Amino acid sequence: MRLFFLLLLCTTCAFAQEGPVYTDARNFQFIGKGLPTNPVYVRLDTVQTKPMTDAVKYLSTHSAGIAVLFRTNSPYIHARWKLIRGMFYTNISPIAHSGLDLYCLNKGRWQWCGVGRPGDKDTLNNGPLVANMDTTMKEFLLYLPTYNQVTSLEIGVAPGATLSRIEKPAVDTTRRVVIYGSSILQGASAGRPGMAYPSILQRRTGWEFINLGFSGNGKMEFPVAELLATMPAKVFVLDCIPNPSAEEIRTRAYPFIKHLLDKRPEVPILLVEAAIREHGYFDQKVAQVSKDKNDAIREAYTKLKKEGYKQLYYLPATDLTGHDHEGTIDGVHLTDLGFMRQAEVMLPLLEQLMKKSVRVK
Amino acid sequence: MRLFFLLLLCTTCAFAQEGPVYTDARNFQFIGKGLPTNPVYVRLDTVQTKPMTDAVKYLSTHSAGIAVLFRTNSPYIHARWKLIRGMFYTNISPIAHSGLDLYCLNKGRWQWCGVGRPGDKDTLNNGPLVANMDTTMKEFLLYLPTYNQVTSLEIGVAPGATLSRIEKPAVDTTRRVVIYGSSILQGASAGRPGMAYPSILQRRTGWEFINLGFSGNGKMEFPVAELLATMPAKVFVLDCIPNPSAEEIRTRAYPFIKHLLDKRPEVPILLVEAAIREHGYFDQKVAQVSKDKNDAIREAYTKLKKEGYKQLYYLPATDLTGHDHEGTIDGVHLTDLGFMRQAEVMLPLLEQLMKKSVRVK
Repeated sequence: MRLFFLLLLCTTCAFAQEGPVYTDARNFQFIGKGLPTNPVYVRLDTVQTKPMTDAVKYLSTHSAGIAVLFRTNSPYIHARWKLIRGMFYTNISPIAHSGLDLYCLNKGRWQWCGVGRPGDKDTLNNGPLVANMDTTMKEFLLYLPTYNQVTSLEIGVAPGATLSRIEKPAVDTTRRVVIYGSSILQGASAGRPGMAYPSILQRRTGWEFINLGFSGNGKMEFPVAELLATMPAKVFVLDCIPNPSAEEIRTRAYPFIKHLLDKRPEVPILLVEAAIREHGYFDQKVAQVSKDKNDAIREAYTKLKKEGYKQLYYLPATDLTGHDHEGTIDGVHLTDLGFMRQAEVMLPLLEQLMKKSVRVK
Repeated sequence: MRLFFLLLLCTTCAFAQEGPVYTDARNFQFIGKGLPTNPVYVRLDTVQTKPMTDAVKYLSTHSAGIAVLFRTNSPYIHARWKLIRGMFYTNISPIAHSGLDLYCLNKGRWQWCGVGRPGDKDTLNNGPLVANMDTTMKEFLLYLPTYNQVTSLEIGVAPGATLSRIEKPAVDTTRRVVIYGSSILQGASAGRPGMAYPSILQRRTGWEFINLGFSGNGKMEFPVAELLATMPAKVFVLDCIPNPSAEEIRTRAYPFIKHLLDKRPEVPILLVEAAIREHGYFDQKVAQVSKDKNDAIREAYTKLKKEGYKQLYYLPATDLTGHDHEGTIDGVHLTDLGFMRQAEVMLPLLEQLMKKSVRVK
C-alpha cells in the first residue's frame, strides 16, 4: 500500500514536471473583433448577424483576424485548439485555414515565432508553437485560423511558468481600422493566419484592425452597413468590390456608403477598387467584369463626393499588388507576396487617414 | 431506327462541338529535367536513383520544377492529370503540391495565366486552366506539381484549334542551372508550382533550371554528386544545407563538392548557406543547429578554396529572405514572399556566374 502511494506520487510528480499546463484562452485579451460577441471566437455572433444572409452568418463564425494577447516566461508554448469541422480548400494551406500563428514582441516590434499545425481535417489539434526559449518574460500575439471556426483554445506553458494577461499591450485599440470585404480580405490565400493584409498592417502600425472579410459574400447588403455603423472605428475601409456584381454595386453601394457616412461623419471611409484578376489579362470576360465593377464603385464614389462628403476616399487598384502578375495563387486570391504588396500600398494612406481622424476627435 | 441513328449522330456532333479535345502532353517538350528519364514525369528514374537512398528514390518521382511547353490558338485550355496518390501537407496548398500552373508568353515575358486545381486527394483531376482568350497563336509553359507524382497529363483545347510543339521556345536550354537541395528548393511552401525560386529565376532569365530539391533528403550522399556530375549544366547550385546535420556536412560536403569540381572544372558551383530558421531567433537550440551547419559548410568551402578551386562560390544566408522575418510559412519553408526575395538575391549572382561559364566555353 505504501509502495502504491509512492508510485502514485511519483507518477503525479512526473506528470506535473512534464507539462504543459493549459489555460483557457478566454482568460486573456482578444483583438480583431468589431464588437463583443458570444462566443468569443467568432467575428459576429448570431444576434448581430440576425438580419444578414445565411452565408454571412456562417462566415462570421470564421476567426479571420482575431488574435489573443498574453505574456509568459515559459521556455515553450503549446496550444490545444478545437475546430468545428475539418476543412479542405484547394487554394489555402491548412496552417492558414485551420492553424495558429504566433508572434512575440521583440524590441517593440511583433516578430514571427511559431505556428500551430492542424492535422488533416482534425477537429482537435494539439502541438508546440515554439520551444527552447530563454525564460525572460515576453509578450505574445496568437492569430486564430482564417477559414474555420474555433470552438475552444487553450495555451500551454511549462509548470511553474507565469502565464497572464498583458496590462498594457503593444496594440492601440483606440486606433482602430474596420475593414469590410471579400475572401481576399478574409485571408485567402495567405500562408499563415497572420499574413492577411490587415494583420500585417496591425503589426506595422500598432493599431487594431478588424477583419470583416466574408468569402464570396462581401456583397454590400444594407444590414451590414447598419452593423458597421455601430462599431468603434477611426477609419473604415470597404474592400468588397470583388464580390457584388456590377449591377449589385450600382444598386447597393450608394445607400450602403451613404448610411455609413451619415451615421459616422467623423470617420474617414476608404473605398478600395477590386485588384485586377490576373487571368483577366487573358480571359476577356473576366477582364470586362472587373472593369464594370470598378466603374460602378467609382460612379458611387463620384456621386457621393459631389454631394459633399469630404471624409470619403478612393484607392484605385492600379498599383495594389505589383506589376509582375505574381501576387496571387489563382488570379484572385493573394499569397503572402500579394498581401505584403497590398499592405505596403495601403500603409501610408491609412496613416494619413488615421492622422485626420484622430485630429477631428 | 433512322431516328435512333439521327439522335446518335446529333449527340456525337454535340460532343465533338463541345470539346475539349485532349492530347497527351508527352507529344510536347519538357523542361526542368536534369537528364532524360523514363517515365517522362519524374525528375530521376529508377536507373538513375539505383545507388541512392529510398527517400531520394521516392522524392525523385515528384515533378517539382518540371514544365511542358506548347503553343495553341484555342480560346481555352483544359488539363486532365493523374496523380499517383492523394496528398496532405499541413504547410502546402493543394494547388502547389498537386496542381498545375500555367504561364503564357506575352511580349517576350512569361506571364501567369491560370492554375489547375486538384480535388481533395483526388488522383484524377480535370479542369479548365484559362478561358475566353482571343484566338491568336500563343506559347504556354505549364508547371507540374511540386510534391506529388504525375502519371499522365493531357492538354485539352477547343475542337479545330491548333495545339503543337513550339519550334523555338523562349527557354534557352543551353544555359542551364542545376540546383540540388532541400524541401525549400523542392517548392515548400510556394502557393503555386511556378513560385519555387528556380521557376521564378527560369522565367526571369529565360534559362533552364533543374530543381533537384528532395524534401528533408538533400543530404549530400556521394552517389548524388556522381549523378550531378553527368548532367549538362552551365552552373551548379548546392542549396542543401538545411538537410544534413553539421556532422554529416563535415564528413560529406568536402568529397561531394570536390567530386563535382574535379569532374566539371568548367562549371561554376555556388554554395548557398541555410537561411536562418525564423523560430531560431527564439528557439536557442534551433539557432545553434543552423549556425553549426553554416559553420561546417563554410569550413568545406574554405578548405577547397585553399586547394585552389577557382570556380567555387559562396552565398551567405544573411540577406537571402529579407529582414522582417515574414518570408516563411513555418520558420523554415518559404512562401511566395520568401521565394521572390531569394530569387532576387540570387539573380545578379547567377547572371555573373553564367557569364563566366559561357565565356569559358
